[in-house]
Amino acid sequence: MTETASSGSVEFFEQTLHRFRQMTIDALLEAIPDRGPPYLYDLVPTYPKRTGKGLRAALCLATCGALGGSERKAINSAVAVELFHNAFLIHDDVQDESVCRRNGTTLHRDYGTGVAVNVGNATNLMGLRRLMDNRPVLGPQTSWRIFEETEQMMRQSLEGQAIEIGWIRDNVQGLTQDDYLRMTLKKTSWYSFIYPLVIGALVAQGPATDVARFRRLGWYAGAAFQIQDDILNLTGDFGRYGKEIDGDLWEGKRTLMLIHVMNVCTGDERVALADFLAKRRADRTIEEVGAIHQLMERRGSIDYARRAARQLAGATLIEALTVCRNTPDAVYKRFILEMTPYLIDRDR
Amino acid sequence: MTETASSGSVEFFEQTLHRFRQMTIDALLEAIPDRGPPYLYDLVPTYPKRTGKGLRAALCLATCGALGGSERKAINSAVAVELFHNAFLIHDDVQDESVCRRNGTTLHRDYGTGVAVNVGNATNLMGLRRLMDNRPVLGPQTSWRIFEETEQMMRQSLEGQAIEIGWIRDNVQGLTQDDYLRMTLKKTSWYSFIYPLVIGALVAQGPATDVARFRRLGWYAGAAFQIQDDILNLTGDFGRYGKEIDGDLWEGKRTLMLIHVMNVCTGDERVALADFLAKRRADRTIEEVGAIHQLMERRGSIDYARRAARQLAGATLIEALTVCRNTPDAVYKRFILEMTPYLIDRDR
Repeated sequence: MTETASSGSVEFFEQTLHRFRQMTIDALLEAIPDRGPPYLYDLVPTYPKRTGKGLRAALCLATCGALGGSERKAINSAVAVELFHNAFLIHDDVQDESVCRRNGTTLHRDYGTGVAVNVGNATNLMGLRRLMDNRPVLGPQTSWRIFEETEQMMRQSLEGQAIEIGWIRDNVQGLTQDDYLRMTLKKTSWYSFIYPLVIGALVAQGPATDVARFRRLGWYAGAAFQIQDDILNLTGDFGRYGKEIDGDLWEGKRTLMLIHVMNVCTGDERVALADFLAKRRADRTIEEVGAIHQLMERRGSIDYARRAARQLAGATLIEALTVCRNTPDAVYKRFILEMTPYLIDRDR
Repeated sequence: MTETASSGSVEFFEQTLHRFRQMTIDALLEAIPDRGPPYLYDLVPTYPKRTGKGLRAALCLATCGALGGSERKAINSAVAVELFHNAFLIHDDVQDESVCRRNGTTLHRDYGTGVAVNVGNATNLMGLRRLMDNRPVLGPQTSWRIFEETEQMMRQSLEGQAIEIGWIRDNVQGLTQDDYLRMTLKKTSWYSFIYPLVIGALVAQGPATDVARFRRLGWYAGAAFQIQDDILNLTGDFGRYGKEIDGDLWEGKRTLMLIHVMNVCTGDERVALADFLAKRRADRTIEEVGAIHQLMERRGSIDYARRAARQLAGATLIEALTVCRNTPDAVYKRFILEMTPYLIDRDR
């Protein structure tokens, strides 16, 4: 790996991410049954094969590596992380009625809700299966601890998802940045950062691992990541980002920008925004969505969110340095440290 | 329990089923978090509180009891069985676009698909949690075996569901009774009968249990049960059955009756049936559904299915006697034996 250790930061990060991603996807695809009824295992690879970031599996592999564990021992868990993520995306697209995902049509649009719910469940189950395969490799104690972390991660994710759905459904007003961050901890940080970091550490260090510092690192990283994701939904390039631009506005999703603009706008702007949010999704128009987007720009909501993300990325770096303090200066450590600028500089 | 041991068969079965059901529902509701975001744990009890049969949990408790295990040791697993069943129903209703379930509106009709998918996932997760709670009670070996059975059950159920969805989606022709029985083994028998029987046995006898005979018993029972379920969908009383009558016809579901009538009808009848099945659900009319229903009656398809269910119930009884051969003549054994007529005589 020494050839990359001296290359530029962004280049190094992306090359390493690519290598982790390839390793994970190969191991993921390898274990998908090639027999079975149509519309099940044959559709499990659909989302994984579209070029996702692969960040979550990479974090699991890098954390294990930084703490002295081998990639071979972590690969089942990394694949499970990626499978849970894809299962979550499939169900999330059904729930949000999304049209695009990773530059392709969403699964339920192509095959119907019935098939998509099933494929999401099958993808989840294949994740659990991979964690069961840990037992002969990691022993019963560590495998069980990973199961416990998995149960908690799933619970947190479902609660985060429920909070967000409830906010939209009940057209909740008066939310603050703290509310947003609490929701994001559950909806994003837990499964995208805390969980991969913690299970990577458990694979390397066994059931006695002190998981608290990985939780802190993952919590800040997830918040910065989610804010950047919401910014990309407004300002991104469709070809890179792969989802509908302004999709969150159509949904009435309580992003940090929407919460900001709800709190700062006044008079007619406030009335127009309240009217827009009180409508059902199907009754919103493209002119209204454009007007809310402009209102956010005018009121500095997007810049506000950028600053918040940058501060959270800074806090992430402090935690990353703590986590990596006594680890050797290898590619794994560098990957974890250089994840920080990526969280907020990424365009996809 | 001696007061019921001498009462009439049906009365005994229903009283015992009621007692098992009450015990399971109490233990299920007790562990649902009373805090958390709206539209999640608060909706998990919706289906369990509507009066279901409770048959699956009862089979788990009865099998454990018949083999000398205690109800206390089996209760977590019985609750998990019931939770998995309810999670399956919630997702199944989303997938089939059903309107009624257990005499109430389906969850997705009342709260939208987003909430329903989430509540289904939360219900599933609470089932897994209960299985994790087995560890201090049953020890790591037996708990792990139960997890393995759970993974297999979920895989079988998803495959069965995929087969059925695929048949409707691709408007598959030329199916036979054997195809139907293979699909039913996966879709119904595994999670409704094989799984509760096997884990009841594992709780009582530990990881060395010979599960093959419970699989055979569950396989026949599930087939008889599913055929009766499909018959009730055509001939049942809505107030007792709790789902839309003729709902399966609207869906184009490949029941044994539909497979039979597809194979025996000729000429104009055949053309009309093919036209009906080639339509999308939304384009089918109530007159057409009524005509297919009458065609099934005229061609003896419902009587044919009744006979098939009765034969499968007979085979179930033979397996039940084998399973119970060396068990004491207690209430548990009697319950398992008297399940057999219930499979095909039930009206809900």
